[in-house]
Amino acid sequence: MSLAANWIALDWGTTHVRAWAMSASATVLDQRSSDKGMGRLDPSQFEAALQDLITGWTNGPVTAIACGMVGARQGWAEAAYSAVPCAPLPDGLTRAPTHDPNLTVLIIPGLSQDNPADVMRGEETQIAGFLALNPGWDGVLCLPGTHTKWVEVSAGEVVSFQTCMTGDLFAAITGHTVLRHSTGGTDWEEAAFDSALADTLSRPEKLAARLFSLRAEGLLHGLSAGAARARLSGLLIGAELAATRPYWLGQQIGVIGAGAVAGLYVRALAAQGAPATQADAARVTLAGLTAAWRRWKDPK
Amino acid sequence: MSLAANWIALDWGTTHVRAWAMSASATVLDQRSSDKGMGRLDPSQFEAALQDLITGWTNGPVTAIACGMVGARQGWAEAAYSAVPCAPLPDGLTRAPTHDPNLTVLIIPGLSQDNPADVMRGEETQIAGFLALNPGWDGVLCLPGTHTKWVEVSAGEVVSFQTCMTGDLFAAITGHTVLRHSTGGTDWEEAAFDSALADTLSRPEKLAARLFSLRAEGLLHGLSAGAARARLSGLLIGAELAATRPYWLGQQIGVIGAGAVAGLYVRALAAQGAPATQADAARVTLAGLTAAWRRWKDPK
Repeated sequence: MSLAANWIALDWGTTHVRAWAMSASATVLDQRSSDKGMGRLDPSQFEAALQDLITGWTNGPVTAIACGMVGARQGWAEAAYSAVPCAPLPDGLTRAPTHDPNLTVLIIPGLSQDNPADVMRGEETQIAGFLALNPGWDGVLCLPGTHTKWVEVSAGEVVSFQTCMTGDLFAAITGHTVLRHSTGGTDWEEAAFDSALADTLSRPEKLAARLFSLRAEGLLHGLSAGAARARLSGLLIGAELAATRPYWLGQQIGVIGAGAVAGLYVRALAAQGAPATQADAARVTLAGLTAAWRRWKDPK
Repeated sequence: MSLAANWIALDWGTTHVRAWAMSASATVLDQRSSDKGMGRLDPSQFEAALQDLITGWTNGPVTAIACGMVGARQGWAEAAYSAVPCAPLPDGLTRAPTHDPNLTVLIIPGLSQDNPADVMRGEETQIAGFLALNPGWDGVLCLPGTHTKWVEVSAGEVVSFQTCMTGDLFAAITGHTVLRHSTGGTDWEEAAFDSALADTLSRPEKLAARLFSLRAEGLLHGLSAGAARARLSGLLIGAELAATRPYWLGQQIGVIGAGAVAGLYVRALAAQGAPATQADAARVTLAGLTAAWRRWKDPK
Protein backbone atom coordinates (compact mmCIF):
# COMPACT_ATOMS: atom_id res chain seq x y z
CA MET A 1 0.00 0.00 0.00
CA SER A 2 1.22 3.46 -0.78
CA LEU A 3 0.38 6.96 0.38
CA ALA A 4 1.30 8.26 -3.07
CA ALA A 5 3.18 11.19 -1.63
CA ASN A 6 3.52 13.99 -4.15
CA TRP A 7 6.87 15.00 -2.70
CA ILE A 8 8.96 14.43 0.40
CA ALA A 9 10.35 16.97 2.84
CA LEU A 10 13.61 16.05 4.63
CA ASP A 11 15.34 17.66 7.60
CA TRP A 12 18.63 15.73 7.64
CA GLY A 13 20.96 16.79 10.41
CA THR A 14 24.12 15.39 11.99
CA THR A 15 22.37 13.07 14.43
CA HIS A 16 18.83 12.60 13.09
CA VAL A 17 16.75 12.69 9.94
CA ARG A 18 13.07 13.60 9.82
CA ALA A 19 10.87 12.99 6.78
CA TRP A 20 7.39 14.19 5.88
CA ALA A 21 5.20 12.67 3.14
CA MET A 22 3.58 15.65 1.43
CA SER A 23 0.55 16.08 -0.80
CA ALA A 24 0.48 18.22 -3.94
CA SER A 25 -1.11 20.98 -1.86
CA ALA A 26 1.68 20.68 0.73
CA THR A 27 -0.31 19.08 3.51
CA VAL A 28 1.38 16.44 5.64
CA LEU A 29 0.27 12.85 4.88
CA ASP A 30 2.67 11.12 7.24
CA GLN A 31 5.93 11.71 9.08
CA ARG A 32 8.80 9.54 10.29
CA SER A 33 12.23 9.95 11.75
CA SER A 34 15.36 7.92 12.39
CA ASP A 35 18.77 8.31 14.00
CA LYS A 36 20.58 7.83 10.68
CA GLY A 37 22.02 11.31 10.80
CA MET A 38 24.78 12.51 8.49
CA GLY A 39 27.37 11.74 11.16
CA ARG A 40 26.64 8.00 10.92
CA LEU A 41 26.58 7.65 7.13
CA ASP A 42 29.10 7.46 4.32
CA PRO A 43 28.06 9.30 1.14
CA SER A 44 27.17 5.94 -0.44
CA GLN A 45 24.76 5.05 2.37
CA PHE A 46 22.34 7.97 2.20
CA GLU A 47 20.16 6.59 -0.59
CA ALA A 48 19.47 3.29 1.17
CA ALA A 49 18.80 5.11 4.46
CA LEU A 50 16.27 7.31 2.71
CA GLN A 51 14.57 4.39 0.91
CA ASP A 52 14.20 2.61 4.28
CA LEU A 53 12.70 5.68 5.86
CA ILE A 54 10.11 6.34 3.13
CA THR A 55 9.06 2.73 2.44
CA GLY A 56 5.41 2.65 1.35
CA TRP A 57 5.16 6.39 0.73
CA THR A 58 5.59 6.35 -3.06
CA ASN A 59 4.66 4.27 -6.09
CA GLY A 60 6.41 6.18 -8.84
CA PRO A 61 8.72 9.10 -9.40
CA VAL A 62 9.12 11.33 -6.38
CA THR A 63 11.16 14.38 -5.47
CA ALA A 64 12.63 14.95 -2.01
CA ILE A 65 13.67 18.43 -0.84
CA ALA A 66 16.34 18.23 1.89
CA CYS A 67 18.05 20.65 4.22
CA GLY A 68 20.78 20.33 6.83
CA MET A 69 24.13 18.59 7.14
CA VAL A 70 23.15 16.20 4.35
CA GLY A 71 24.58 18.97 2.14
CA ALA A 72 27.93 19.21 3.97
CA ARG A 73 31.23 18.13 2.45
CA GLN A 74 30.94 14.82 4.35
CA GLY A 75 27.23 14.49 3.49
CA TRP A 76 25.37 12.98 0.55
CA ALA A 77 26.40 15.75 -1.85
CA GLU A 78 28.07 19.04 -1.04
CA ALA A 79 25.75 22.00 -1.59
CA ALA A 80 28.02 25.04 -1.83
CA TYR A 81 27.17 27.83 0.62
CA SER A 82 25.35 30.97 -0.51
CA ALA A 83 27.19 34.05 0.75
CA VAL A 84 25.25 36.61 2.78
CA PRO A 85 23.74 39.11 2.27
CA CYS A 86 21.25 36.97 0.33
CA ALA A 87 17.80 35.44 0.55
CA PRO A 88 17.76 32.36 2.79
CA LEU A 89 16.72 30.15 -0.16
CA PRO A 90 18.80 30.26 -3.35
CA ASP A 91 17.55 30.00 -6.90
CA GLY A 92 19.13 26.59 -7.47
CA LEU A 93 19.27 23.39 -5.42
CA THR A 94 22.00 20.73 -5.47
CA ARG A 95 21.05 17.35 -6.86
CA ALA A 96 22.34 14.33 -4.91
CA PRO A 97 23.41 11.24 -6.92
CA THR A 98 20.87 8.38 -6.82
CA HIS A 99 20.70 4.89 -8.33
CA ASP A 100 16.89 4.72 -8.33
CA PRO A 101 15.72 6.60 -11.46
CA ASN A 102 12.40 7.34 -9.72
CA LEU A 103 14.09 9.25 -6.90
CA THR A 104 15.18 12.89 -7.22
CA VAL A 105 16.87 14.40 -4.16
CA LEU A 106 17.49 18.16 -4.08
CA ILE A 107 19.53 19.76 -1.29
CA ILE A 108 19.16 23.32 -0.04
CA PRO A 109 22.59 24.94 0.43
CA GLY A 110 23.69 26.55 3.66
CA LEU A 111 24.76 30.16 4.13
CA SER A 112 28.25 31.51 4.69
CA GLN A 113 29.59 34.85 5.87
CA ASP A 114 33.05 36.01 4.93
CA ASN A 115 33.89 38.29 7.85
CA PRO A 116 33.48 37.42 10.64
CA ALA A 117 33.71 33.92 9.16
CA ASP A 118 30.57 31.93 9.87
CA VAL A 119 28.45 29.15 8.37
CA MET A 120 25.04 27.56 8.80
CA ARG A 121 23.28 24.51 7.30
CA GLY A 122 19.63 23.86 7.98
CA GLU A 123 18.84 27.09 9.79
CA GLU A 124 18.54 28.95 6.46
CA THR A 125 15.49 26.75 5.76
CA GLN A 126 13.97 27.63 9.14
CA ILE A 127 14.56 31.30 8.42
CA ALA A 128 12.87 30.94 5.01
CA GLY A 129 9.96 29.14 6.69
CA PHE A 130 9.62 31.82 9.36
CA LEU A 131 9.53 34.49 6.64
CA ALA A 132 6.99 32.47 4.61
CA LEU A 133 4.76 32.37 7.70
CA ASN A 134 5.45 36.02 8.60
CA PRO A 135 5.76 37.90 5.29
CA GLY A 136 7.58 41.21 5.49
CA TRP A 137 9.06 40.48 8.94
CA ASP A 138 12.26 42.40 9.77
CA GLY A 139 14.34 41.86 12.87
CA VAL A 140 16.63 39.34 14.52
CA LEU A 141 16.03 35.60 14.69
CA CYS A 142 17.62 33.50 17.41
CA LEU A 143 17.81 29.76 16.66
CA PRO A 144 18.94 28.00 19.84
CA GLY A 145 20.69 24.66 19.57
CA THR A 146 24.07 23.00 19.89
CA HIS A 147 25.30 25.93 17.82
CA THR A 148 22.91 28.82 18.36
CA LYS A 149 22.51 31.22 15.45
CA TRP A 150 21.71 34.93 15.69
CA VAL A 151 20.44 36.21 12.35
CA GLU A 152 19.77 39.73 11.18
CA VAL A 153 16.91 39.67 8.65
CA SER A 154 15.89 42.64 6.54
CA ALA A 155 13.72 42.92 3.40
CA GLY A 156 13.60 39.13 3.03
CA GLU A 157 17.38 38.71 3.16
CA VAL A 158 19.85 37.45 5.72
CA VAL A 159 22.09 40.47 6.27
CA SER A 160 24.52 38.93 8.79
CA PHE A 161 24.68 36.17 11.36
CA GLN A 162 26.66 34.98 14.37
CA THR A 163 27.07 31.46 15.74
CA CYS A 164 27.66 30.79 19.44
CA MET A 165 28.49 27.20 20.37
CA THR A 166 26.87 27.50 23.80
CA GLY A 167 25.02 24.17 23.72
CA ASP A 168 28.15 22.35 22.57
CA LEU A 169 30.14 23.98 25.41
CA PHE A 170 27.49 23.13 28.01
CA ALA A 171 27.57 19.46 26.98
CA ALA A 172 31.39 19.32 26.94
CA ILE A 173 31.69 21.03 30.35
CA THR A 174 29.02 18.92 32.08
CA GLY A 175 30.30 15.74 30.43
CA HIS A 176 34.07 16.09 30.30
CA THR A 177 35.43 18.51 32.93
CA VAL A 178 35.60 18.44 36.74
CA LEU A 179 32.14 20.05 36.75
CA ARG A 180 30.66 16.69 35.69
CA HIS A 181 30.80 15.81 39.41
CA SER A 182 28.78 18.93 40.31
CA THR A 183 26.14 19.21 37.58
CA GLY A 184 24.72 15.69 37.15
CA GLY A 185 21.05 14.81 36.81
CA THR A 186 18.21 16.89 35.43
CA ASP A 187 17.31 19.09 38.42
CA TRP A 188 17.10 22.77 37.70
CA GLU A 189 16.88 25.82 39.97
CA GLU A 190 15.54 28.76 38.03
CA ALA A 191 16.75 31.39 40.50
CA ALA A 192 20.33 30.14 40.04
CA PHE A 193 19.97 30.54 36.27
CA ASP A 194 18.65 34.08 36.64
CA SER A 195 21.36 35.30 39.00
CA ALA A 196 24.21 33.73 37.02
CA LEU A 197 22.83 35.30 33.84
CA ALA A 198 22.72 38.71 35.46
CA ASP A 199 26.23 38.26 36.90
CA THR A 200 27.78 37.43 33.54
CA LEU A 201 25.96 40.17 31.68
CA SER A 202 27.07 42.80 34.16
CA ARG A 203 30.68 41.54 34.43
CA PRO A 204 31.40 39.33 31.39
CA GLU A 205 35.14 39.61 32.00
CA LYS A 206 34.73 37.54 35.21
CA LEU A 207 33.39 34.44 33.45
CA ALA A 208 36.61 32.41 33.71
CA ALA A 209 36.67 32.96 37.48
CA ARG A 210 33.09 31.77 37.97
CA LEU A 211 33.19 28.29 36.50
CA PHE A 212 35.31 26.43 39.05
CA SER A 213 33.35 28.04 41.88
CA LEU A 214 30.46 25.69 40.98
CA ARG A 215 32.69 22.81 42.07
CA ALA A 216 34.04 24.59 45.14
CA GLU A 217 30.58 25.70 46.30
CA GLY A 218 29.45 22.10 46.08
CA LEU A 219 32.39 20.89 48.16
CA LEU A 220 32.29 23.66 50.76
CA HIS A 221 28.71 24.88 50.91
CA GLY A 222 26.64 21.99 49.55
CA LEU A 223 25.53 23.69 46.32
CA SER A 224 23.01 21.29 44.75
CA ALA A 225 23.50 19.76 41.30
CA GLY A 226 20.29 21.45 40.13
CA ALA A 227 21.57 24.86 41.17
CA ALA A 228 25.03 24.22 39.71
CA ARG A 229 23.55 23.04 36.39
CA ALA A 230 21.24 26.04 36.12
CA ARG A 231 24.02 28.42 37.15
CA LEU A 232 26.37 27.01 34.50
CA SER A 233 23.66 27.49 31.89
CA GLY A 234 23.10 31.06 33.09
CA LEU A 235 26.83 31.81 32.92
CA LEU A 236 27.14 30.49 29.36
CA ILE A 237 23.93 32.02 27.98
CA GLY A 238 24.91 35.24 29.74
CA ALA A 239 28.27 35.17 27.96
CA GLU A 240 26.42 34.58 24.69
CA LEU A 241 24.04 37.50 25.23
CA ALA A 242 26.99 39.71 26.15
CA ALA A 243 28.74 38.76 22.91
CA THR A 244 25.64 39.18 20.72
CA ARG A 245 24.28 42.37 22.27
CA PRO A 246 24.51 44.30 18.97
CA TYR A 247 22.20 41.67 17.48
CA TRP A 248 19.36 41.77 20.00
CA LEU A 249 19.51 45.19 21.64
CA GLY A 250 16.51 47.25 20.58
CA GLN A 251 15.47 44.76 17.86
CA GLN A 252 12.31 42.83 17.10
CA ILE A 253 13.29 39.29 18.14
CA GLY A 254 11.95 35.88 17.15
CA VAL A 255 13.18 32.73 18.90
CA ILE A 256 12.74 29.57 16.84
CA GLY A 257 12.19 26.51 19.00
CA ALA A 258 9.58 25.28 21.44
CA GLY A 259 11.73 23.23 23.81
CA ALA A 260 13.26 24.00 27.18
CA VAL A 261 16.41 25.55 25.71
CA ALA A 262 14.47 28.01 23.54
CA GLY A 263 12.48 28.92 26.66
CA LEU A 264 15.73 29.78 28.45
CA TYR A 265 16.67 32.21 25.69
CA VAL A 266 13.26 33.86 25.83
CA ARG A 267 13.55 34.13 29.62
CA ALA A 268 17.09 35.50 29.40
CA LEU A 269 16.15 38.10 26.78
CA ALA A 270 13.09 39.16 28.78
CA ALA A 271 15.32 39.74 31.81
CA GLN A 272 17.27 42.19 29.63
CA GLY A 273 14.11 44.01 28.63
CA ALA A 274 14.10 42.38 25.18
CA PRO A 275 10.80 40.59 24.59
CA ALA A 276 10.87 37.81 22.00
CA THR A 277 8.17 35.85 20.22
CA GLN A 278 8.58 32.10 19.82
CA ALA A 279 7.99 29.97 16.74
CA ASP A 280 7.92 26.18 16.59
CA ALA A 281 11.07 24.79 14.96
CA ALA A 282 9.45 21.82 13.19
CA ARG A 283 6.71 24.05 11.80
CA VAL A 284 9.11 26.63 10.35
CA THR A 285 11.39 23.89 9.00
CA LEU A 286 8.49 22.34 7.11
CA ALA A 287 7.36 25.76 5.90
CA GLY A 288 10.88 26.42 4.60
CA LEU A 289 11.11 23.06 2.82
CA THR A 290 7.68 23.77 1.31
CA ALA A 291 8.80 27.21 0.12
CA ALA A 292 11.86 25.62 -1.53
CA TRP A 293 9.67 22.95 -3.18
CA ARG A 294 7.24 25.59 -4.52
CA ARG A 295 10.10 27.67 -5.91
CA TRP A 296 11.62 24.58 -7.58
CA LYS A 297 8.25 23.50 -9.06
CA ASP A 298 7.26 26.95 -10.28
CA PRO A 299 10.36 29.03 -10.81
CA LYS A 300 9.64 32.69 -11.28
CA MET B 1 69.35 -4.26 48.62
CA SER B 2 68.00 -1.11 50.16
CA LEU B 3 68.70 2.59 49.86
CA ALA B 4 67.75 3.04 53.49
CA ALA B 5 65.76 6.16 52.77
CA ASN B 6 65.33 8.26 55.90
CA TRP B 7 61.93 9.46 54.71
CA ILE B 8 59.84 9.53 51.54
CA ALA B 9 58.33 12.50 49.75
CA LEU B 10 55.10 11.90 47.79
CA ASP B 11 53.29 14.09 45.27
CA TRP B 12 50.09 12.09 44.76
CA GLY B 13 47.68 13.68 42.31
CA THR B 14 44.58 12.56 40.44
CA THR B 15 46.40 10.92 37.54
CA HIS B 16 49.96 10.30 38.73
CA VAL B 17 52.06 9.75 41.82
CA ARG B 18 55.70 10.75 42.17
CA ALA B 19 57.94 9.54 44.99
CA TRP B 20 61.38 10.63 46.15
CA ALA B 21 63.64 8.61 48.48
CA MET B 22 65.16 11.18 50.83
CA SER B 23 68.21 11.20 53.12
CA ALA B 24 68.19 12.57 56.67
CA SER B 25 69.65 15.79 55.27
CA ALA B 26 66.86 15.98 52.69
CA THR B 27 68.88 15.13 49.62
CA VAL B 28 67.30 13.01 46.92
CA LEU B 29 68.55 9.40 46.84
CA ASP B 30 66.20 8.16 44.14
CA GLN B 31 62.91 9.01 42.47
CA ARG B 32 60.13 7.06 40.78
CA SER B 33 56.66 7.68 39.45
CA SER B 34 53.62 5.73 38.33
CA ASP B 35 50.18 6.34 36.86
CA LYS B 36 48.42 5.03 39.96
CA GLY B 37 46.85 8.37 40.66
CA MET B 38 44.05 8.93 43.17
CA GLY B 39 41.47 8.67 40.39
CA ARG B 40 42.35 5.01 39.75
CA LEU B 41 42.45 3.82 43.36
CA ASP B 42 39.94 2.87 46.06
CA PRO B 43 40.94 3.98 49.55
CA SER B 44 41.97 0.38 50.31
CA GLN B 45 44.41 0.26 47.39
CA PHE B 46 46.71 3.15 48.25
CA GLU B 47 48.97 1.25 50.63
CA ALA B 48 49.77 -1.52 48.14
CA ALA B 49 50.34 1.04 45.38
CA LEU B 50 52.80 2.87 47.61
CA GLN B 51 54.62 -0.31 48.68
CA ASP B 52 55.02 -1.24 45.01
CA LEU B 53 56.41 2.17 44.19
CA ILE B 54 59.00 2.28 47.00
CA THR B 55 60.18 -1.35 46.82
CA GLY B 56 63.82 -1.53 47.89
CA TRP B 57 63.96 1.95 49.36
CA THR B 58 63.56 1.02 53.04
CA ASN B 59 64.57 -1.69 55.50
CA GLY B 60 62.77 -0.53 58.62
CA PRO B 61 60.36 2.10 59.85
CA VAL B 62 59.85 4.97 57.43
CA THR B 63 57.66 8.06 57.23
CA ALA B 64 56.15 9.36 53.99
CA ILE B 65 54.98 12.95 53.66
CA ALA B 66 52.31 13.28 50.96
CA CYS B 67 50.47 16.11 49.24
CA GLY B 68 47.75 16.29 46.61
CA MET B 69 44.48 14.54 45.89
CA VAL B 70 45.58 11.61 48.05
CA GLY B 71 44.03 13.75 50.83
CA ALA B 72 40.66 14.26 49.10
CA ARG B 73 37.42 12.74 50.32
CA GLN B 74 37.82 9.97 47.72
CA GLY B 75 41.56 9.60 48.49
CA TRP B 76 43.51 7.52 51.02
CA ALA B 77 42.36 9.61 53.97
CA GLU B 78 40.57 12.94 53.95
CA ALA B 79 42.78 15.78 55.18
CA ALA B 80 40.38 18.60 56.08
CA TYR B 81 41.11 21.90 54.34
CA SER B 82 42.80 24.77 56.18
CA ALA B 83 40.86 27.98 55.63
CA VAL B 84 42.69 31.02 54.27
CA PRO B 85 44.10 33.38 55.34
CA CYS B 86 46.67 30.96 56.75
CA ALA B 87 50.18 29.66 56.21
CA PRO B 88 50.34 27.17 53.33
CA LEU B 89 51.48 24.40 55.68
CA PRO B 90 49.41 23.68 58.80
CA ASP B 91 50.68 22.66 62.22
CA GLY B 92 49.23 19.16 61.95
CA LEU B 93 49.22 16.50 59.24
CA THR B 94 46.59 13.81 58.65
CA ARG B 95 47.70 10.22 59.23
CA ALA B 96 46.50 7.70 56.64
CA PRO B 97 45.56 4.18 57.88
CA THR B 98 48.22 1.54 57.11
CA HIS B 99 48.55 -2.20 57.76
CA ASP B 100 52.36 -2.23 57.75
CA PRO B 101 53.48 -1.07 61.23
CA ASN B 102 56.75 0.20 59.72
CA LEU B 103 54.97 2.63 57.41
CA THR B 104 53.72 6.04 58.57
CA VAL B 105 51.95 8.16 55.94
CA LEU B 106 51.19 11.80 56.74
CA ILE B 107 49.08 13.92 54.39
CA ILE B 108 49.30 17.69 53.99
CA PRO B 109 45.80 19.23 53.91
CA GLY B 110 44.63 21.49 51.11
CA LEU B 111 43.42 25.07 51.47
CA SER B 112 39.87 26.38 51.23
CA GLN B 113 38.40 29.84 50.83
CA ASP B 114 34.90 30.62 51.99
CA ASN B 115 33.95 33.48 49.68
CA PRO B 116 34.38 33.28 46.76
CA ALA B 117 34.28 29.53 47.40
CA ASP B 118 37.50 27.88 46.27
CA VAL B 119 39.73 24.91 47.08
CA MET B 120 43.22 23.58 46.33
CA ARG B 121 45.08 20.35 47.09
CA GLY B 122 48.76 20.02 46.31
CA GLU B 123 49.40 23.61 45.29
CA GLU B 124 49.66 24.67 48.95
CA THR B 125 52.79 22.50 49.15
CA GLN B 126 54.26 24.18 46.07
CA ILE B 127 53.53 27.56 47.60
CA ALA B 128 55.26 26.50 50.82
CA GLY B 129 58.22 25.25 48.80
CA PHE B 130 58.44 28.48 46.83
CA LEU B 131 58.46 30.45 50.08
CA ALA B 132 61.08 28.13 51.59
CA LEU B 133 63.30 28.81 48.59
CA ASN B 134 62.46 32.55 48.55
CA PRO B 135 62.11 33.62 52.19
CA GLY B 136 60.17 36.81 52.74
CA TRP B 137 58.68 36.80 49.21
CA ASP B 138 55.40 38.75 48.82
CA GLY B 139 53.33 38.85 45.68
CA VAL B 140 51.14 36.67 43.49
CA LEU B 141 51.87 33.11 42.47
CA CYS B 142 50.34 31.62 39.33
CA LEU B 143 50.30 27.80 39.22
CA PRO B 144 49.22 26.77 35.70
CA GLY B 145 47.62 23.38 35.21
CA THR B 146 44.30 21.71 34.51
CA HIS B 147 42.97 24.05 37.19
CA THR B 148 45.23 27.06 37.32
CA LYS B 149 45.56 28.77 40.72
CA TRP B 150 46.22 32.45 41.32
CA VAL B 151 47.45 32.99 44.86
CA GLU B 152 48.00 36.18 46.81
CA VAL B 153 50.87 35.67 49.27
CA SER B 154 51.79 38.11 52.02
CA ALA B 155 53.95 37.74 55.14
CA GLY B 156 54.22 33.98 54.65
CA GLU B 157 50.46 33.45 54.42
CA VAL B 158 48.05 32.71 51.61
CA VAL B 159 45.67 35.67 51.75
CA SER B 160 43.29 34.67 48.94
CA PHE B 161 43.22 32.57 45.81
CA GLN B 162 41.28 32.01 42.59
CA THR B 163 40.98 28.88 40.46
CA CYS B 164 40.41 29.05 36.69
CA MET B 165 39.72 25.73 34.97
CA THR B 166 41.31 26.87 31.71
CA GLY B 167 43.29 23.68 31.04
CA ASP B 168 40.23 21.53 31.73
CA LEU B 169 38.18 23.68 29.33
CA PHE B 170 40.84 23.55 26.62
CA ALA B 171 40.90 19.74 26.78
CA ALA B 172 37.09 19.45 26.77
CA ILE B 173 36.72 21.87 23.84
CA THR B 174 39.46 20.31 21.70
CA GLY B 175 38.30 16.80 22.56
CA HIS B 176 34.52 16.97 22.76
CA THR B 177 33.07 19.87 20.74
CA VAL B 178 32.89 20.65 17.01
CA LEU B 179 36.28 22.36 17.38
CA ARG B 180 37.90 18.91 17.65
CA HIS B 181 37.77 18.89 13.83
CA SER B 182 39.66 22.20 13.67
CA THR B 183 42.31 21.96 16.41
CA GLY B 184 43.86 18.49 16.03
CA GLY B 185 47.55 17.68 16.18
CA THR B 186 50.31 19.51 18.00
CA ASP B 187 51.11 22.37 15.61
CA TRP B 188 51.19 25.81 17.14
CA GLU B 189 51.28 29.30 15.64
CA GLU B 190 52.52 31.76 18.19
CA ALA B 191 51.20 34.84 16.39
CA ALA B 192 47.67 33.37 16.52
CA PHE B 193 48.01 32.92 20.30
CA ASP B 194 49.21 36.49 20.75
CA SER B 195 46.46 38.11 18.71
CA ALA B 196 43.66 36.03 20.27
CA LEU B 197 44.98 36.88 23.72
CA ALA B 198 44.98 40.58 22.93
CA ASP B 199 41.46 40.34 21.42
CA THR B 200 39.97 38.71 24.49
CA LEU B 201 41.70 41.01 26.92
CA SER B 202 40.48 44.10 25.10
CA ARG B 203 36.91 42.79 24.52
CA PRO B 204 36.29 39.94 26.99
CA GLU B 205 32.53 40.20 26.43
CA LYS B 206 33.02 38.94 22.83
CA LEU B 207 34.50 35.56 23.86
CA ALA B 208 31.34 33.52 23.14
CA ALA B 209 31.25 34.91 19.59
CA ARG B 210 34.87 34.00 18.86
CA LEU B 211 34.92 30.27 19.50
CA PHE B 212 32.85 28.96 16.57
CA SER B 213 34.75 31.25 14.20
CA LEU B 214 37.72 28.86 14.55
CA ARG B 215 35.60 26.22 12.82
CA ALA B 216 34.16 28.61 10.23
CA GLU B 217 37.57 30.09 9.38
CA GLY B 218 38.84 26.57 8.78
CA LEU B 219 35.95 25.76 6.44
CA LEU B 220 35.93 29.05 4.56
CA HIS B 221 39.46 30.41 4.70
CA GLY B 222 41.64 27.37 5.39
CA LEU B 223 42.71 28.33 8.91
CA SER B 224 45.30 25.73 9.91
CA ALA B 225 44.89 23.43 12.93
CA GLY B 226 48.02 24.93 14.47
CA ALA B 227 46.62 28.44 14.21
CA ALA B 228 43.20 27.34 15.48
CA ARG B 229 44.73 25.51 18.44
CA ALA B 230 46.92 28.45 19.41
CA ARG B 231 44.06 30.89 18.94
CA LEU B 232 41.77 28.84 21.18
CA SER B 233 44.48 28.82 23.84
CA GLY B 234 44.90 32.57 23.49
CA LEU B 235 41.15 33.14 23.81
CA LEU B 236 40.90 31.02 26.97
CA ILE B 237 44.05 32.32 28.67
CA GLY B 238 42.94 35.83 27.69
CA ALA B 239 39.60 35.23 29.41
CA GLU B 240 41.48 33.98 32.45
CA LEU B 241 43.75 37.03 32.60
CA ALA B 242 40.71 39.30 32.19
CA ALA B 243 39.01 37.56 35.13
CA THR B 244 42.10 37.59 37.37
CA ARG B 245 43.34 41.11 36.59
CA PRO B 246 43.04 42.21 40.24
CA TYR B 247 45.47 39.41 41.09
CA TRP B 248 48.29 40.18 38.70
CA LEU B 249 48.01 43.89 37.86
CA GLY B 250 50.95 45.76 39.38
CA GLN B 251 52.06 42.77 41.47
CA GLN B 252 55.29 40.84 41.79
CA ILE B 253 54.46 37.59 39.97
CA GLY B 254 55.92 34.10 40.16
CA VAL B 255 54.80 31.39 37.73
CA ILE B 256 55.38 27.88 39.02
CA GLY B 257 56.05 25.41 36.22
CA ALA B 258 58.67 24.86 33.57
CA GLY B 259 56.61 23.32 30.78
CA ALA B 260 55.02 24.77 27.69
CA VAL B 261 51.82 25.83 29.46
CA ALA B 262 53.67 27.80 32.13
CA GLY B 263 55.62 29.46 29.33
CA LEU B 264 52.33 30.59 27.75
CA TYR B 265 51.30 32.29 30.98
CA VAL B 266 54.66 34.06 31.24
CA ARG B 267 54.33 35.16 27.60
CA ALA B 268 50.74 36.31 28.12
CA LEU B 269 51.59 38.28 31.27
CA ALA B 270 54.61 39.88 29.57
CA ALA B 271 52.34 41.04 26.74
CA GLN B 272 50.31 42.86 29.40
CA GLY B 273 53.41 44.54 30.82
CA ALA B 274 53.48 42.17 33.80
CA PRO B 275 56.87 40.43 33.98
CA ALA B 276 56.90 37.14 35.88
CA THR B 277 59.69 34.93 37.17
CA GLN B 278 59.43 31.18 36.71
CA ALA B 279 60.11 28.43 39.23
CA ASP B 280 60.33 24.71 38.50
CA ALA B 281 57.24 22.86 39.75
CA ALA B 282 58.98 19.63 40.80
CA ARG B 283 61.66 21.59 42.67
CA VAL B 284 59.17 23.67 44.67
CA THR B 285 56.99 20.62 45.36
CA LEU B 286 59.95 18.79 46.84
CA ALA B 287 60.96 21.88 48.82
CA GLY B 288 57.42 22.09 50.22
CA LEU B 289 57.33 18.40 51.18
CA THR B 290 60.74 18.87 52.82
CA ALA B 291 59.49 21.90 54.77
CA ALA B 292 56.52 19.85 56.00
CA TRP B 293 58.80 16.98 56.99
CA ARG B 294 61.15 19.30 58.91
CA ARG B 295 58.22 20.90 60.73
CA TRP B 296 56.84 17.45 61.65
CA LYS B 297 60.26 16.19 62.83
CA ASP B 298 61.13 19.31 64.84
CA PRO B 299 57.95 21.06 65.84
CA LYS B 300 58.51 24.54 67.12
